[in-house]
Amino acid sequence: MKIGRIVLGALLIFSAPILAWAQDPLASWNDTAPKKAIVAFVERVTREGSTDFVPVAERIATFDNDGTLWAEQPMYFQLAFALDRTKALAPQHPEWKTKEPFASLLKGDLKGALAGGNRSLMEIVMASHANVTTEEFEQIVRDWMATAKHQQTGRHYNEMIYQPMVELLAYLRANGFKTFIVSGGGIEFMRPWVEQAYGIPPEQVIGSSIETKFEMRDGKPVLVRLPKIDFIDDKEGKPVGINSHIGRRPIAAFGNSDGDLQMLQWTTAGSGPRFALIVHHTDAEREWAYDRKSSIGTLDKAWDEATARKWVVVDMKQDWRVIFPNEK
Amino acid sequence: MKIGRIVLGALLIFSAPILAWAQDPLASWNDTAPKKAIVAFVERVTREGSTDFVPVAERIATFDNDGTLWAEQPMYFQLAFALDRTKALAPQHPEWKTKEPFASLLKGDLKGALAGGNRSLMEIVMASHANVTTEEFEQIVRDWMATAKHQQTGRHYNEMIYQPMVELLAYLRANGFKTFIVSGGGIEFMRPWVEQAYGIPPEQVIGSSIETKFEMRDGKPVLVRLPKIDFIDDKEGKPVGINSHIGRRPIAAFGNSDGDLQMLQWTTAGSGPRFALIVHHTDAEREWAYDRKSSIGTLDKAWDEATARKWVVVDMKQDWRVIFPNEK
Repeated sequence: MKIGRIVLGALLIFSAPILAWAQDPLASWNDTAPKKAIVAFVERVTREGSTDFVPVAERIATFDNDGTLWAEQPMYFQLAFALDRTKALAPQHPEWKTKEPFASLLKGDLKGALAGGNRSLMEIVMASHANVTTEEFEQIVRDWMATAKHQQTGRHYNEMIYQPMVELLAYLRANGFKTFIVSGGGIEFMRPWVEQAYGIPPEQVIGSSIETKFEMRDGKPVLVRLPKIDFIDDKEGKPVGINSHIGRRPIAAFGNSDGDLQMLQWTTAGSGPRFALIVHHTDAEREWAYDRKSSIGTLDKAWDEATARKWVVVDMKQDWRVIFPNEK
Repeated sequence: MKIGRIVLGALLIFSAPILAWAQDPLASWNDTAPKKAIVAFVERVTREGSTDFVPVAERIATFDNDGTLWAEQPMYFQLAFALDRTKALAPQHPEWKTKEPFASLLKGDLKGALAGGNRSLMEIVMASHANVTTEEFEQIVRDWMATAKHQQTGRHYNEMIYQPMVELLAYLRANGFKTFIVSGGGIEFMRPWVEQAYGIPPEQVIGSSIETKFEMRDGKPVLVRLPKIDFIDDKEGKPVGINSHIGRRPIAAFGNSDGDLQMLQWTTAGSGPRFALIVHHTDAEREWAYDRKSSIGTLDKAWDEATARKWVVVDMKQDWRVIFPNEK
């Protein structure tokens, strides 16, 4: 009986901090300024009766994907998909052996393949993303995501999502927020896997797109993906995409590069409480360190504006206890 | 005590049917085949453990607006808005006095104004819908909706929504469905009022659109509406719009005209339980009666396909106890 009480007492003493840790919805964030700012903002807009209270329907939060929710180095993961897909399609395209940018690409010369700039890139993207139905493309993305691995980390690409951001998404949703992705990446490249990775359903994904066309094939309706750009959801395109898909201004937005600047401006220009956060890649050991001079995820103008307007800037090395899921 | 028991007994006897009526989520529907088909479908897909069970995330239902959720005669209500708006703008456009289609329109000659066909219509739509910011346009629509009235019914336009469909939307949502509008009408013409009218938030509205452009004006970001068509969400465009905005195939779709045929085909072509319903306008007394030969809301090919594929067809006169809210 006495021993029982002591055990019980010990359990009570030790379980409190353990429970507190287990219950911290942002456990992968260090207790530094960004975490405090996030919690303060959420408490502010959810406190009923306060002047800053925001009704649930208006709690819209938008997140960039590449470099904000998952990694983007040494090349956008969708480009890795495009390269793999082009190689897989090569046997059906003997003409590629002598036609650029495919010839260089198939020889393993990525630099040569991309020497033609945007035009070369676009040819690779169209060859790898178009001329299939939407259902076929979804399956192609699923198969690639299940098999392809990042050369440096050996992880599947959907295991290179940021654990602190996954927790942040869940924390916002637990507080009545609707979370959206607003990415320069392809909308149909993201939808097949982001629901499982981030808990974001396809109808809350906004991205760049190519045109699709409705057709009847053997009496069955299909949507065919055409080799034609429909919309680029980057920079000035992000507020346009938000307006088109959501029709309501977010109260919180999260990005990592100059491609997110206009989304952050649009979000913070609304009345009432607003929140803007930028992820700064500072951890060359656990992830990558890059900003103003990087061609991928350039963080320059948006960083200056973040400083001037006191937006929250996350220093990954300092503010994130963990980067990827299942670390340690 | 005895009297008490009698009163209690009487209450129990009489309250049962009253409660049953009050609790009927589809009280404005007569107990005819369409109502029974709707209830049977919803019970089928929500019964856990059954082979036809559909997870909540996949319970997507799409609704046409004009002629399906609200009336559309004697002209699409958005056209009435365009005409009113053009008249309101006339003082700022003295050149319209001699320039068609505006000259005829301002003289009250609608037929003459629309004599130029699609081109005339497009000029009126652009003049009345573009060259303002998205925020300005939202306010213009709100103001119009609060003041304009339908000439024949004397009702505000947002009071000409169909009460049975409002109940159906709520019934589906109560059963875990996410309800979307997929309309040929303007996306930004609908968003300011459909949340209050139907309980559908702006992010679940898909419609036709004109292009918008992000601009900084005096340091403040705005989205300007351009006089350029972006997307026509009608016929073959409806599955395209659904794929773009939802990224998931609906399991139920509701329309009233040939403009909805492809949406109904796309919806019913998926695997598992599917539901398609067409509203047939048959009530010349309480609403309007029109189908194959009407230029507005033509119901011809979609009706044939509904018959062939046993889709549910609502006969408004026979199946709806009430048409508009607050009747009787």
